[in-house]
Amino acid sequence: MIPFNKPYLTGKEAHYLYQAVLSGKISGDGMFTKKCNQFFESKYEFGKVLLTTSCTDALELAALLLKIEPGDEVIMPSYTFVSTANAFALRGAHIRFVDSRSDHPGMDEDKIEELINEKTKAIVPVHYAGVASDMDKINDLARKYGISVVEDAAQAIDSWYIGRDGRKPLGACGDLGCFSFHETKNIMAGEGGMIVISNPEYSGRAEILREKGTNRSAFFRGEVDKYSWVDIGSSFLPSDIIAAFLYAQLENIDDIQARRISLWNRYKNQLIGLEHQGLLATPTVPDFATQNGHMFYVVCRNLDERTRLADHLKKNGIYAVFHYLSLHSAPYFQANHDGRSLTESDRFTDCLLRLPLFYELEDSQVDMICETISRFYTA
Amino acid sequence: MIPFNKPYLTGKEAHYLYQAVLSGKISGDGMFTKKCNQFFESKYEFGKVLLTTSCTDALELAALLLKIEPGDEVIMPSYTFVSTANAFALRGAHIRFVDSRSDHPGMDEDKIEELINEKTKAIVPVHYAGVASDMDKINDLARKYGISVVEDAAQAIDSWYIGRDGRKPLGACGDLGCFSFHETKNIMAGEGGMIVISNPEYSGRAEILREKGTNRSAFFRGEVDKYSWVDIGSSFLPSDIIAAFLYAQLENIDDIQARRISLWNRYKNQLIGLEHQGLLATPTVPDFATQNGHMFYVVCRNLDERTRLADHLKKNGIYAVFHYLSLHSAPYFQANHDGRSLTESDRFTDCLLRLPLFYELEDSQVDMICETISRFYTA
Repeated sequence: MIPFNKPYLTGKEAHYLYQAVLSGKISGDGMFTKKCNQFFESKYEFGKVLLTTSCTDALELAALLLKIEPGDEVIMPSYTFVSTANAFALRGAHIRFVDSRSDHPGMDEDKIEELINEKTKAIVPVHYAGVASDMDKINDLARKYGISVVEDAAQAIDSWYIGRDGRKPLGACGDLGCFSFHETKNIMAGEGGMIVISNPEYSGRAEILREKGTNRSAFFRGEVDKYSWVDIGSSFLPSDIIAAFLYAQLENIDDIQARRISLWNRYKNQLIGLEHQGLLATPTVPDFATQNGHMFYVVCRNLDERTRLADHLKKNGIYAVFHYLSLHSAPYFQANHDGRSLTESDRFTDCLLRLPLFYELEDSQVDMICETISRFYTA
Repeated sequence: MIPFNKPYLTGKEAHYLYQAVLSGKISGDGMFTKKCNQFFESKYEFGKVLLTTSCTDALELAALLLKIEPGDEVIMPSYTFVSTANAFALRGAHIRFVDSRSDHPGMDEDKIEELINEKTKAIVPVHYAGVASDMDKINDLARKYGISVVEDAAQAIDSWYIGRDGRKPLGACGDLGCFSFHETKNIMAGEGGMIVISNPEYSGRAEILREKGTNRSAFFRGEVDKYSWVDIGSSFLPSDIIAAFLYAQLENIDDIQARRISLWNRYKNQLIGLEHQGLLATPTVPDFATQNGHMFYVVCRNLDERTRLADHLKKNGIYAVFHYLSLHSAPYFQANHDGRSLTESDRFTDCLLRLPLFYELEDSQVDMICETISRFYTA
C-alpha cells in the first residue's frame, strides 16, 4: 500500500529534543523557537515571525489583530479548509465566499471587488497547493478600499509570487501570513504553525495577544517593571519540543524541497499525455506563481469518475484522497450564503483527487501510480 | 544557583518520539494521544478526556461548549492566571471576580452567591497549588441556579476533593475540568493541556469543536459518509510528539508525585517554626482537600518584606518568584470592575512567594533554602 502521506525524519529531531530539555526550558520561546524564528527571518527576509501551535491558531491570531467583530465581513475562497473561515467566524465575522479560478482552486481574483462594501475588513487569499493567488490584484483592491490582506499560506512554504515588484515569498505578500507545519506539510512538526507579520503596525499587539494578553515580552526586555493583563489574548506558543523537531526539518529544507519538486515534475511529465487527450487535468501554475512540491492532484471530469478512479487506485494499493467541500454550502453556513452559485469551487469539490507525495516516495512508485491511472482511462 | 523550576526527563521521551514517527502519524490523535487518554480515563476514572495544546485552549474549548456570548457573566477568583479570564472574555463574557479565602488563594466559596444573577453562566473555581476549592458548596450553588461549573485544574493533577460523597479527583468535580502540562507543572510537555468532560451533555459537541468545527470523528467511526463544517471550532489537538513526551512522564507519575510531596513536606516541617513565631505563613490544606506537591509557597507579612526576602534568596543563589497580580485591578479590566475591594486577593498578590520545587531538587537544597529563609528573619 502506498499511503497518501508519510511523516519524514531528517535524523536530528530526537537529538534536538534532548538539547531542548537540557537547556532547562521546553515551554514556548525556548532556544529552538528562537532558532526557527531566526531561520525564517533570514532565509525569507520575513518581518516578525511567531511560531504558533497550528495554522488555525495563526489565523485566529490574525483575526484578533485585525479586531474583527460581529458585523464585519471577510472575503475568502469557498474551496478551503474550515479553519480559514472559522478563525474569523469565531470573532463574529460574516464570511463572503468567492469562487475558484477556472484553472486553479485558488480564488478568482476578478470576483472579489463585487463583494467589497463598507463592512469588509479583510481579504484572505489561500495559496492552494502552494501556488500563489495574484497578490498584485488583491493588494491593489485592499489599498483601494483600505482593507487588510491575510494570506492563508498553510501549504505555501518556500513558494513565491512574481509580481510587478519582482519575486516575494508567499506569506509575506500581505499584512499577515499564516503557515502550517501539520504532518501533511512539506516541513512538519505533527501539528504546528506560524504567523508572519509584514505590516509592522501589528507587531507590538501580536506579542501581547500570544502571551495571553499580557505585556510579558516587554517585561523581559525591561520596558515595564511587572507584567499584567493588558488585552485579550490566548496561548499561541508551541512547546519548544515542537520547535526542536521543526528545526531539524528546517535545516534540511533545501533537500526536502528539491526532492518534492522532482516528484511533482515526474507526475506532471507522465500525466500530461492524459491531459492532452482531454481525460483529466493536471495542476497549472500561473506565470506569476511557483510551485513548491506540496501537492500533486488531478482533476477528473465529474464526481462519478473521481470516485471510480480513487477506488481503482485503492484496489491497486494506492491511497489517493479528495480535498475540501465548498464551505458556502456547508451545513453550518449555507443558510447565511447569499445564493451566488460558485461552480468552479463545486467542481474542485467533486473532481479534484490528490495523489501520494512525500519525501520518501520513490520514483518507481510515481511511475506505478501514473501507469495505474493510465490503465483506468484506457480500460 | 537553584532555579525556580527545571524540566525533568523520565528517560523514555525520545524513544517514544521515534515510535510516534515510525507509527506513520504524528498529527493529533495519534497512538500516544490515545495512550494518554486511556491512562487518564483508567487511573482517575475521568469521563471523556481530550488532550489540548494548552490549558488556555482547554478553557477556551470550555467557553465554546458553554456557548458563552456577550452579556453573559462568569464568576472566578481574581487571584488567577489571565487565561482563566481571557478564555471567557474572548467570547464576550463579563467577568465577576471573587476574593480569595483568607487561609488560601483559592476563591472564597461564601462570596460567590451574592454575584449570581440571571446572566450568570458559569462558576470557575481555580484549584490553586493543586488544593481543592470546596466543590460541594460550589456545585450546590450551580445546581440551585442552573449554571455550569468549569474547574481550572491547571495545577491540580493527581489531587483530590473529599466531599460528602467521598474522594473525587480534581478536574472531575464539575461539568468540565481543564489541566495544564506546561513545563512548570508536575507532569509536563513544555506546553500542553487537557479537558476532562464529566457532564456527558458536552461530549458530542466537544469532538466537533476541537476538530475545527467538523464531524470528522463521526466520519471515522462510519456514522456519516463525509465530514463537513457543522459548527464553529478551532484546532485544539496537540501534535502526537507532545503526547509521546507526555506519556513518558505519565508512566512515572507515581514516582514523580511521591518525590514532589516529600519535598513539599520537608519545606513544611522546616518552615512551620517561623509560622508559629508569626513571621510568615505556610500553605494550608483544608480538610476537604489534598495537596499534590505542585507548589510550596510562603506568605510574607507585606510587600516590602516579600521583596526583601526574594532579594535575600537571590543573593544566596535561590530563585523564588511571586505569582499572580489580582485581575480585577489589571489595566485591561479595572474599568469594568464593580468596585468591591478584594483584600485577600491583593494580599496574596503582594505577599505570596513561591519556592523552588522540582523533581530533581535535593533534600539538602530544601534544607539550605529553609536555613536561608530563617537567617533572613533572625538577622
